[in-house]
Amino acid sequence: MTNSSVSKIRIGILGASGYTGGELLRLLACHDGMEVAMLTAERRAGLPLAQVFPHLTALNAPDLIKIGEVDYAGLDAVFCCLPHGTTQEVIAGLPGHLKIVDLSADFRLGDPDVYAEWYGHAHQALELQKEAIYGLTELKRAEIAAARLVANPGCYPTGPQLALTPLLAAKQISPEDIIIDAKSGVSGAGREPKQNTLYAEVGEGVHAYGVAKHRHAPEIEQGLSEAAGAPITVNFTPHLMPMNRGILASIYVRLADGVSVADLRASLEQNYGREPFVHVVAEGVSPATRDVRGSNHCLIGLFADRLPGRAILLTAIDNLVKGASGQALQNMNLMCGLAETTGLEQAPLFP
Amino acid sequence: MTNSSVSKIRIGILGASGYTGGELLRLLACHDGMEVAMLTAERRAGLPLAQVFPHLTALNAPDLIKIGEVDYAGLDAVFCCLPHGTTQEVIAGLPGHLKIVDLSADFRLGDPDVYAEWYGHAHQALELQKEAIYGLTELKRAEIAAARLVANPGCYPTGPQLALTPLLAAKQISPEDIIIDAKSGVSGAGREPKQNTLYAEVGEGVHAYGVAKHRHAPEIEQGLSEAAGAPITVNFTPHLMPMNRGILASIYVRLADGVSVADLRASLEQNYGREPFVHVVAEGVSPATRDVRGSNHCLIGLFADRLPGRAILLTAIDNLVKGASGQALQNMNLMCGLAETTGLEQAPLFP
Amino acid sequence: MTNSSVSKIRIGILGASGYTGGELLRLLACHDGMEVAMLTAERRAGLPLAQVFPHLTALNAPDLIKIGEVDYAGLDAVFCCLPHGTTQEVIAGLPGHLKIVDLSADFRLGDPDVYAEWYGHAHQALELQKEAIYGLTELKRAEIAAARLVANPGCYPTGPQLALTPLLAAKQISPEDIIIDAKSGVSGAGREPKQNTLYAEVGEGVHAYGVAKHRHAPEIEQGLSEAAGAPITVNFTPHLMPMNRGILASIYVRLADGVSVADLRASLEQNYGREPFVHVVAEGVSPATRDVRGSNHCLIGLFADRLPGRAILLTAIDNLVKGASGQALQNMNLMCGLAETTGLEQAPLFP
Amino acid sequence: MTNSSVSKIRIGILGASGYTGGELLRLLACHDGMEVAMLTAERRAGLPLAQVFPHLTALNAPDLIKIGEVDYAGLDAVFCCLPHGTTQEVIAGLPGHLKIVDLSADFRLGDPDVYAEWYGHAHQALELQKEAIYGLTELKRAEIAAARLVANPGCYPTGPQLALTPLLAAKQISPEDIIIDAKSGVSGAGREPKQNTLYAEVGEGVHAYGVAKHRHAPEIEQGLSEAAGAPITVNFTPHLMPMNRGILASIYVRLADGVSVADLRASLEQNYGREPFVHVVAEGVSPATRDVRGSNHCLIGLFADRLPGRAILLTAIDNLVKGASGQALQNMNLMCGLAETTGLEQAPLFP
Repeated sequence: MTNSSVSKIRIGILGASGYTGGELLRLLACHDGMEVAMLTAERRAGLPLAQVFPHLTALNAPDLIKIGEVDYAGLDAVFCCLPHGTTQEVIAGLPGHLKIVDLSADFRLGDPDVYAEWYGHAHQALELQKEAIYGLTELKRAEIAAARLVANPGCYPTGPQLALTPLLAAKQISPEDIIIDAKSGVSGAGREPKQNTLYAEVGEGVHAYGVAKHRHAPEIEQGLSEAAGAPITVNFTPHLMPMNRGILASIYVRLADGVSVADLRASLEQNYGREPFVHVVAEGVSPATRDVRGSNHCLIGLFADRLPGRAILLTAIDNLVKGASGQALQNMNLMCGLAETTGLEQAPLFP
Repeated sequence: MTNSSVSKIRIGILGASGYTGGELLRLLACHDGMEVAMLTAERRAGLPLAQVFPHLTALNAPDLIKIGEVDYAGLDAVFCCLPHGTTQEVIAGLPGHLKIVDLSADFRLGDPDVYAEWYGHAHQALELQKEAIYGLTELKRAEIAAARLVANPGCYPTGPQLALTPLLAAKQISPEDIIIDAKSGVSGAGREPKQNTLYAEVGEGVHAYGVAKHRHAPEIEQGLSEAAGAPITVNFTPHLMPMNRGILASIYVRLADGVSVADLRASLEQNYGREPFVHVVAEGVSPATRDVRGSNHCLIGLFADRLPGRAILLTAIDNLVKGASGQALQNMNLMCGLAETTGLEQAPLFP
Repeated sequence: MTNSSVSKIRIGILGASGYTGGELLRLLACHDGMEVAMLTAERRAGLPLAQVFPHLTALNAPDLIKIGEVDYAGLDAVFCCLPHGTTQEVIAGLPGHLKIVDLSADFRLGDPDVYAEWYGHAHQALELQKEAIYGLTELKRAEIAAARLVANPGCYPTGPQLALTPLLAAKQISPEDIIIDAKSGVSGAGREPKQNTLYAEVGEGVHAYGVAKHRHAPEIEQGLSEAAGAPITVNFTPHLMPMNRGILASIYVRLADGVSVADLRASLEQNYGREPFVHVVAEGVSPATRDVRGSNHCLIGLFADRLPGRAILLTAIDNLVKGASGQALQNMNLMCGLAETTGLEQAPLFP
Repeated sequence: MTNSSVSKIRIGILGASGYTGGELLRLLACHDGMEVAMLTAERRAGLPLAQVFPHLTALNAPDLIKIGEVDYAGLDAVFCCLPHGTTQEVIAGLPGHLKIVDLSADFRLGDPDVYAEWYGHAHQALELQKEAIYGLTELKRAEIAAARLVANPGCYPTGPQLALTPLLAAKQISPEDIIIDAKSGVSGAGREPKQNTLYAEVGEGVHAYGVAKHRHAPEIEQGLSEAAGAPITVNFTPHLMPMNRGILASIYVRLADGVSVADLRASLEQNYGREPFVHVVAEGVSPATRDVRGSNHCLIGLFADRLPGRAILLTAIDNLVKGASGQALQNMNLMCGLAETTGLEQAPLFP
């Protein structure tokens, strides 16, 4: 891996025509240590990037090619933005010199049985599944820095795990009835045409979906169980919102005996006080997705509940940045020995 | 009160220039038993309605006048859409022959101390406060029919009370940790210009507000306490959504010992199976606000939680219809001896 | 065709699972002279309507069937909401006793050569094409009333033709450089999943599309040419807007010599002064799509241009109502001898 | 003015609590040659920036102060984001060493009579009005670089002037009936609470406003007249759109005799082919505001009209960037001898 002051890290993006691929390209456009050398998109192969993403016309990026045409020798690292399922086959075939951040769900679940239960088939690359490091950067920094393959977290699991992990580790909240009510913008559903993500289906409305059966639930539970040192089940209820970007998670927890909301705040501030992207907002402030739009920030808010002995945590992220491509770049920076914030310094876009 | 087949009930609307006033006018336009005879709006007095609500130009409604100019002798009933606080003074001065449905918060809380605590001052019309009937139609039908003054429920409290009241009355859920995560369109905040409801502040974003201190919490608690026969405190966390209309409430409850989600469903279906406006949706269906837009319907959905012993209830209403003007008209129909559904038969508008 | 006071007209909807089908069902729910007896939807055949349109659950409508399964003997009339192209074959096979309003583009263009030029193939039902009456209700009332087959106008052509036809007929404007800049909500693109109508593609943006080649251009030109008594070419530039419903057309015209904007206004008011659905708004008022949402109204506004000798016309409709299903019902009412406004009296929904 | 490699240019923002102020701060956060040293906001004075713009919490910016408290000695340059009218008084009182980019309309119109006609009162700083350079960067680069006071263009006038100026200068289009139909996001109306920019007034709708009397018309005409060498009047019709950001201008022009659309394209490409921020998009491509969101780019598209001898130009910008703060920074870079693109390299944010 070259990382001198002269040569840039040569990046490939597998599956570059979806929203996470486009977002990576947007972020890499401001990254002075990486260079986009290769882009794939099966059905759009042969097209210039500008036809798939007109907003990136000015980027001077390579044309889209088929994955079978890739010459990996010229690459140092790849972001893998392929669909769940095909990802594991593709990654299993990649040469060993490549650093890989995978944005699919394929390597997030460490337990093959849990994977099989939620995805309906056995995992096809069990060895890689063992090797993969779960890429919630602030919680796994050292392992990520040393990893070859990082499984980038899902958009929904990112905020709640950041908020809850320190509290569970410190036994400040009960592991027993954690309720996560999450609200997401539509880009989280991807760029494949589906009736339920058409403008006219989503505009001017809100509804829950995947109630009690969304695949991000086991991912959240895996992280929280590890933090608590015991198996945790959570309520995770996602809602679809009429907006392009953003996830707000409203998290309802029970305090452990003798613990106050101020204790939770102290714990979160201690954990994240020096983090560049995770911010505990001031008392009384309610985090808003508009305040992280386009940025890699995660805001965490904290309130005492009117219900005695309970607290409310609120996390806001941009699902395409900290919830996907931003965190992926943050991880890749670490894996490549670069400053973690490189390419991620942009301030949020409001309004 | 005239209610013959010939003459229509003569309606006045106090405070007709806000969203609830406009919505009443929309609904009354299709009502064959009522006639809009008088409209007030202090700052817009003297204007034709079309200048305040161009969409109602075709209605041939009376011009807006000041409240001091109203001749109540020509009216049979009034809807009061005035701001909280001034309402109680105005209503205290109304002649006794008028049926009144008040859409403000002034008469919703039966306990003067609770009112004083949440509104920061003593109630100015205590006798009326005692007389007022809380107008959640499906739960108070007989009392409403006999009432002179009905306090129309708040937009947020309507759905959750409809869903939870039968379950608490039947002791099927625990009264102890009810969590209500509500998502509302912006029209619920009214038509007064405020920075936080400007398009550019709300578009493309979501956030919680009034966390642990919204004034609809005590209203919900009042109704649920009555149902449970004991004081109940709830978590009520409202969120502002980038849409004009609609409230989705996601309600997280604990089942009583030995009670199943099927039991809850049976209970709700038994209570609401014959209701024209409250519908328990089919198993596996998640209620969506788009499916009630512009209508007086309330949808209730029901799911088993992944957390053992817990359930998820979802309610969807249009905040301006079942959450305000529609329910107000439903109540007034009852008070005037008309069929409850008159003027409210319109199907929802989707997309 | 039965049309007594006892029996209702029995209606079938071919292709009921799209937005225009759903909108017809919404309107027919309030229609006391028609009864929905049959619904088809090829890919959704066998499903209850509630699974395709949850907002219509309360309607008690028949289940969806395949078009091959329809028993036309039990029907008096059909609305045809099938895709362009297949429509002409289906309608050619319908029994002669049926009144038909076709919402596709198949029978709108009277000239087979123009059809072939814009649709890329010869028309397959030339006799029917000759028979079909173009259903711009206010302009063709008598012919529609006598018709068996009505070609319902396109959404975009409706407003501009209503505004321009009287002015061209009176030779008050130049036929030579009419510019129509139209802005449409996304529902006009239909319910088929396509990438370019996904929420995240349309939200927070606007762009023109089909510039100088949209198929509604020849339809507009056909109507305007007939009005002017000579062939007219127009600029028609459609734009896609981040909203569900509504079309605003901003029309830039040159006044004929000696004609003033006041003359245009007088002409429009004379033509439409007694119309239930077409309204010339007051001087200085700019029509807004929010003011016709959900209604069959068309608003026409009129301004003097700063450019000497020119005027600006603005028309606002709901593309799914006056631009599709509402006008279709208006036409069917006429064809069945019912009051034209039946089922269409609902006031617009704002906000 | 210091501009060494060591010391940064010290920037003040007068009126920092509105949208253009916030946007300047977002852009300056990535600017390595400027430092924000002072922020004013009369009604918010004393507050930390984070309370006015939570999205900028991470910026470590100075607290807001009153304009009377500013010590100009410590500043090198100011952006003035004050309301129209008060601006001219404030700027007249600023010390001479300051470079000033004014984002208000106060110094855009060079002719005092035109100013008085459109603003209803005589200009209060006529000398400054003469001195001020109109800051359409690509058209006035040399004068801007030498200026002390730059009047930053209005949001609407930017795109149309960029598209039309070269064509008028080359006499390729007729100056006589230029029609500009513009569609803007709501942030262009500012952050002051007004009923007509509330979410529920704008959501799900579109309408024209200020028809034939918007104050950006004389600004456009001033620039185009200069380009044509003769007075030009234009049709300028702005429309309010349900989105936060972006302006699309659809411009309808008549070709000069013997000129083709290809000639226009050649002319635009020649003028802008090497510009970093102005891009003529490929043939057949329609510029979309989503493709410039958050960036300083202006896209120009070009189509032959179906009307013989006419063409359609389409321009897309982000109203808060190229239409306000981005162009302001571009100008200030020039005035300070910095690379024009500094702080403006961010790629657009889509979706």
